[in-house]
Amino acid sequence: MKKIPHRIYLTEDQIPKQWYNLRADMKELPDPMLNPQNFQPVKVEDLYPVFCTELAKQELDNSTRYIDIPEELQEFYKMFRPSPLIRAYNLEKALGTPAKIYYKFEGNNTSGSHKLNSAIAQAYYAKKQGLTSLTTETGAGQWGTALAEACSYYNLPLTVYMVKCSYEQKPFRKSIIRTFDGNIIPSPSNTTNAGRSILEIDPNSTGSLGCAISEAVEKAVTTDGCKYVLGSVLNQVLLHQSIIGLESKIAMEMIDEYPDIVIGCAGGGSNLGGLIAPFMQDKLTEKANPRIIAVEPASCPSLTRGRYAYDFCDTGKITPLARMYTLGSSFIPSANHAGGLRYHGMSPILSKLYHDEYMEAISVEQTKVFEAAVFFAKHETILPAPESSHAIRGAIDEALKCKETGEAKTILFGLTGTGYFDMTAYESYLNGSMQDYIPTDKDLEKGFSCLPKIPGIQ
Amino acid sequence: MKKIPHRIYLTEDQIPKQWYNLRADMKELPDPMLNPQNFQPVKVEDLYPVFCTELAKQELDNSTRYIDIPEELQEFYKMFRPSPLIRAYNLEKALGTPAKIYYKFEGNNTSGSHKLNSAIAQAYYAKKQGLTSLTTETGAGQWGTALAEACSYYNLPLTVYMVKCSYEQKPFRKSIIRTFDGNIIPSPSNTTNAGRSILEIDPNSTGSLGCAISEAVEKAVTTDGCKYVLGSVLNQVLLHQSIIGLESKIAMEMIDEYPDIVIGCAGGGSNLGGLIAPFMQDKLTEKANPRIIAVEPASCPSLTRGRYAYDFCDTGKITPLARMYTLGSSFIPSANHAGGLRYHGMSPILSKLYHDEYMEAISVEQTKVFEAAVFFAKHETILPAPESSHAIRGAIDEALKCKETGEAKTILFGLTGTGYFDMTAYESYLNGSMQDYIPTDKDLEKGFSCLPKIPGIQ
Repeated sequence: MKKIPHRIYLTEDQIPKQWYNLRADMKELPDPMLNPQNFQPVKVEDLYPVFCTELAKQELDNSTRYIDIPEELQEFYKMFRPSPLIRAYNLEKALGTPAKIYYKFEGNNTSGSHKLNSAIAQAYYAKKQGLTSLTTETGAGQWGTALAEACSYYNLPLTVYMVKCSYEQKPFRKSIIRTFDGNIIPSPSNTTNAGRSILEIDPNSTGSLGCAISEAVEKAVTTDGCKYVLGSVLNQVLLHQSIIGLESKIAMEMIDEYPDIVIGCAGGGSNLGGLIAPFMQDKLTEKANPRIIAVEPASCPSLTRGRYAYDFCDTGKITPLARMYTLGSSFIPSANHAGGLRYHGMSPILSKLYHDEYMEAISVEQTKVFEAAVFFAKHETILPAPESSHAIRGAIDEALKCKETGEAKTILFGLTGTGYFDMTAYESYLNGSMQDYIPTDKDLEKGFSCLPKIPGIQ
Repeated sequence: MKKIPHRIYLTEDQIPKQWYNLRADMKELPDPMLNPQNFQPVKVEDLYPVFCTELAKQELDNSTRYIDIPEELQEFYKMFRPSPLIRAYNLEKALGTPAKIYYKFEGNNTSGSHKLNSAIAQAYYAKKQGLTSLTTETGAGQWGTALAEACSYYNLPLTVYMVKCSYEQKPFRKSIIRTFDGNIIPSPSNTTNAGRSILEIDPNSTGSLGCAISEAVEKAVTTDGCKYVLGSVLNQVLLHQSIIGLESKIAMEMIDEYPDIVIGCAGGGSNLGGLIAPFMQDKLTEKANPRIIAVEPASCPSLTRGRYAYDFCDTGKITPLARMYTLGSSFIPSANHAGGLRYHGMSPILSKLYHDEYMEAISVEQTKVFEAAVFFAKHETILPAPESSHAIRGAIDEALKCKETGEAKTILFGLTGTGYFDMTAYESYLNGSMQDYIPTDKDLEKGFSCLPKIPGIQ
């Protein structure tokens, strides 16, 4: 038998020309977003003040199975795609596992992650609509970098609200976003009402994705020609990110493989939703039955310890209500080092699939995550992002189970990005000062107690 | 005609299985290295106290045209190679040039540069010889990172002397080298005689590659089972780096292209020597006649303003003497931001080829380099390393000449690495505080006055 190459690249022609919309194959759809004023399902025109028109349509499109990737975007994708599917020969050997481990590596572009897949799509639609600026939030800074790259490409001014603890942990993220002409503000800030009211309660707030979202949305709705874009959670983002899974599946078909287990890290769900899309399709249509595992930080365990409830997507409570696994929009996670996973909720699509038991979830502590990250780096020569390393931890643990049982399972995981801007976190792991934070039940109850009351629903 | 893809990847089977030794085709060889004690040509056994046996042999092998890449190394190469050859469609469009611009991108591995090509080879030979530790120097930190990765893979303890000004500009380089278990010391340091004597003269010395080399060599020769390895300048390094050019040439053949101009940045010459190898072969054997251009920093202009003379490879004057373009081993370049190019000399092979007019050289100021870097980043979505950006500057200038003349020349340049650890430098460019440093003739005379006197030779 011919040995499978270390790195499998599609040709440019094989890059998917359509995104896949998972909702079209779900037996039961996610519950609709609700307007927070009247608790009625959101109509597409309700979204226009905040979102680009085309993206608002994608957000509510539950039925179109495949959506064409505009040709101009296909061209842009070719600048950094296809991303490689990599066989982790050395990791397998170091673990002594009979499992076959593959990872889809999305970190080989300057944003350092998969975020560019959706950033460039959102900037494209904004430009096409004639918008004159955009706002967004960023946690770890990867989304902010990706969107700055995309906006610079389309000459669209951009304001980025960056979660303050990440802003401080990663001073160089500011410079890279500035290199691409992005204006970056640590959040909570005094530039918005939402930020000011959070700072009034806690002047030392380290911020959260939910809080940064409030600020960015407020800035968008109060600025002419400006809309808000978001790097995760939303249906439209999962749609764009489906290219990860679609490419992975084609690459695996080329080597006659199919995963028994698909593993991704989960914050808002953008990478996980994209990676698993075609495999979940097989599951929903009963063509195959892979296990699908979300790995989240123990410090922000929305799937494993959250409630499946309607909640705001932001801390300032100005977004529509989405039914999702949530820790409550007022929950501020401790300052763990995977800034990209510090979100109180989870993609409504993934929440529904998890609720309906199409996927599993586990939570892991950050010292265990960094242990996996360093082990992986030494054997696979790639320095992973802390977020991505949650998936590595999950994959290593499954591979070690295979070692015990002797099963040669095929494991696919998503390596979403690189850790070059996370050396402060690596340093704290290496010098032994990194701590694990696990919220107590009381901490969680506090978050749940702020969930919105909705007449007749919750 | 079929459109040329944005990214051209070889298949794994197409990755070269032999390195190419440029010396075998040179009409006149570089002058031999001299033993500094007796000024006699160095014999291979003279090198054994400092270098691994196999690498010492490669250093002096002027005749074997192709040298097999050991199978184990071929396997390692597959973890991060082939690197893509990229057609810069967007850069061409932004410049409005009829030129066709290609770049070989070596930055998609955790070392962030081409340095891993030689680092893993050197660690492999060291391990095979049963050595128990290695030492090296690093300027920008890319070589140090690459060697730390390689040594971690082979479980070889490593001490890295890092040029002090780079160490201070790039705090996170320390952490990434530590992640791969490397021990890192800012140079000049008080851990060696060479370091102490430099600090005695100038306690505030910002260091230089030449000085860090002295420290690393001293540490190697005074430690049992330890040898010294170097990331540039040497013939063996150019040999390993030939894989860059060999891959580039195969990829260009696949799309029926051949470069009219080949451009690389030049510090010690590792990337330039590797990139141009097969094209220089064509030139030496009169099969083709591409222009070959070295781009060096105006602050450290060894080719454009140096002397072609025998000199020490290090500041402490403990290495053999090599005939090369040099600014004098006592020349300490100003603290410009391309740490990887702050070397007083130039590869003897490249020096000879330049002396014999097989290649051209230009020098550029760093603000012009960063202007090119930011322009490139915005259009090609890759944040380049400052070193690599010298080649970008050269390529942009040649493409703009084509715009004037209307010629559709084919330009190939080497994009050696990424700038994620260079954000301090980018920040200084963005905020306008970056300054250009050009040594005066008097500065250079001072360096030349320290060139060694060799009876009957110079």
